[in-house]
Amino acid sequence: MAGWRAAIARRFEARTGVPTGPENVTVTAGGQAALFAAHMAVCDPGDVALMCDPFYTTYPGTIRATGAALRTVPTRSEAGFAPQRDDIRARAEGAASLLINTPNNPTGAVYSLGVLSGIADACREADLWLISDEVYDGQVWEGAHLSPRALPGMEERTLVIGSMSKTHAMTGSRLGWVIGPPEVIDGLIELAHGTTYGVPGFIQDAALAALELGPAFEDKIAAPFRRRREIALQGLADQALIRPVASQGAMYMMLDVRATGQSGAAFAEDLLERRRIAVMPGESFGTAAAGHIRVAMTVDDAAWEAALKEILSHAKELCDA
Amino acid sequence: MAGWRAAIARRFEARTGVPTGPENVTVTAGGQAALFAAHMAVCDPGDVALMCDPFYTTYPGTIRATGAALRTVPTRSEAGFAPQRDDIRARAEGAASLLINTPNNPTGAVYSLGVLSGIADACREADLWLISDEVYDGQVWEGAHLSPRALPGMEERTLVIGSMSKTHAMTGSRLGWVIGPPEVIDGLIELAHGTTYGVPGFIQDAALAALELGPAFEDKIAAPFRRRREIALQGLADQALIRPVASQGAMYMMLDVRATGQSGAAFAEDLLERRRIAVMPGESFGTAAAGHIRVAMTVDDAAWEAALKEILSHAKELCDA
Repeated sequence: MAGWRAAIARRFEARTGVPTGPENVTVTAGGQAALFAAHMAVCDPGDVALMCDPFYTTYPGTIRATGAALRTVPTRSEAGFAPQRDDIRARAEGAASLLINTPNNPTGAVYSLGVLSGIADACREADLWLISDEVYDGQVWEGAHLSPRALPGMEERTLVIGSMSKTHAMTGSRLGWVIGPPEVIDGLIELAHGTTYGVPGFIQDAALAALELGPAFEDKIAAPFRRRREIALQGLADQALIRPVASQGAMYMMLDVRATGQSGAAFAEDLLERRRIAVMPGESFGTAAAGHIRVAMTVDDAAWEAALKEILSHAKELCDA
Repeated sequence: MAGWRAAIARRFEARTGVPTGPENVTVTAGGQAALFAAHMAVCDPGDVALMCDPFYTTYPGTIRATGAALRTVPTRSEAGFAPQRDDIRARAEGAASLLINTPNNPTGAVYSLGVLSGIADACREADLWLISDEVYDGQVWEGAHLSPRALPGMEERTLVIGSMSKTHAMTGSRLGWVIGPPEVIDGLIELAHGTTYGVPGFIQDAALAALELGPAFEDKIAAPFRRRREIALQGLADQALIRPVASQGAMYMMLDVRATGQSGAAFAEDLLERRRIAVMPGESFGTAAAGHIRVAMTVDDAAWEAALKEILSHAKELCDA
């Protein structure tokens, strides 16, 4: 549907200033299908696909399904989990693509212009496709979302992954997209023909209606997470046991629990057992977020505030023991 | 959703007698996604995937997307376009799978027990996975639909492709499935996780409701095609210029136009230009259906009857010229 592809293009252009038309957009059965399709487009079997650590849990399976070989670029808590130019350079040999995610799940990082420029430099130097997962682009708590597709020389080597899941709370409708050069998009339309035949028209209609509600609707969807992030930053102020890292976007916070002397996994397990609070250990997202836990800001404000107090009290108990 | 997978399993078991449970079923974003997933499951990159000629037009792209190499097994109009054991045997070297489709698009063939036994023999001998596309299983005009999964020794090497598209006229909802051994299904669930994350729950709910309407509803959907097939067989009786081939199932008829001296492509083009009737040339489905045209029984009865008369009159005109 040209109308729906055009609406996606208009949203991207309005947010980035990069001229974008329906010929730059293909629709997929969710952001997951967009990630799979983007890697299918730019990686041949055996090519190395780079991704940053920590990473969203489905990334490895999605990339392996395309036949590409996985290699991780580590990031550091101390650098807000943002990937650095030299770390990419050092691992770019034989790589066809780099997958980034800003705003980031699981870390809550939003990549700055400086970070993105470093990524772009590394991609141009090593002739990498940049696959930029921007499904949380409507959830930025400090500054603004920047897409690397807007940087010089990047439009022709960037595939942006988008989705209705987060910005419009339409996760269950499985509606995503890829934005990129028309010749790649043409190939992805062929791939869609052979793998799904397309996305139900009535879902596309619903998504078009949702998109036409404009940025005010997206702000409304994002507001509770913005509010809970403020609650958390206040609740965790004036102590050094539990340190929020990054916390610039997305509906997650990464908390550094290393001062308790515990691993993220041990902390999370204890927390579940003793306080009945479920969080994800940083270790479940690779190796770079060891000693951290990821908390999802998806419970109501009161429960959120209470849970943070419990987490803090649990950490203190561990240190007093 | 176990309820929906169980409903698919019950439908298959009721039609074939083969004990089938939810552990034998995975849900996909349409039959096309099921075909892609099934080939991903059993073919490694570079493996040969066999398919019959003539073939549904998306098959080559779907198979190539998995990284498998394509090899066709020819069928013959004179044998009702049913694949023969020896033709499969002769092409099985290095092959990992064979894709069949019964009832067949584009030919309208429904494979007999004899044909299916020959296919099963060839698959067992050459250690092939059989991918059996049975999306038209509710549209059989003579005899009954048989699934090769019910034949001795075939349950462990057969993946059945199904869909709500044809039997329940839910093409636009993109809801399909694969039925097979639990260990393959487990792998396909992993693949779904990495490629689509699943199918919208509300579509699964709708499909479950449709399935619960039972066989009477499927018969109602199939009735117009059954009626139009009778109209066509009567309309084409007592002449030898246009010969319906197979015509045992599905919403298509393959018509042999070789007696007119024209190719299917030339006949179809002329027919469009001079009579404003659009049909598919047999040549668009491979090489085995050259000199044929495929007509879709998807116009109302009066238009269908009139179109057949026009086609016959057009053929006579060609011969008189």
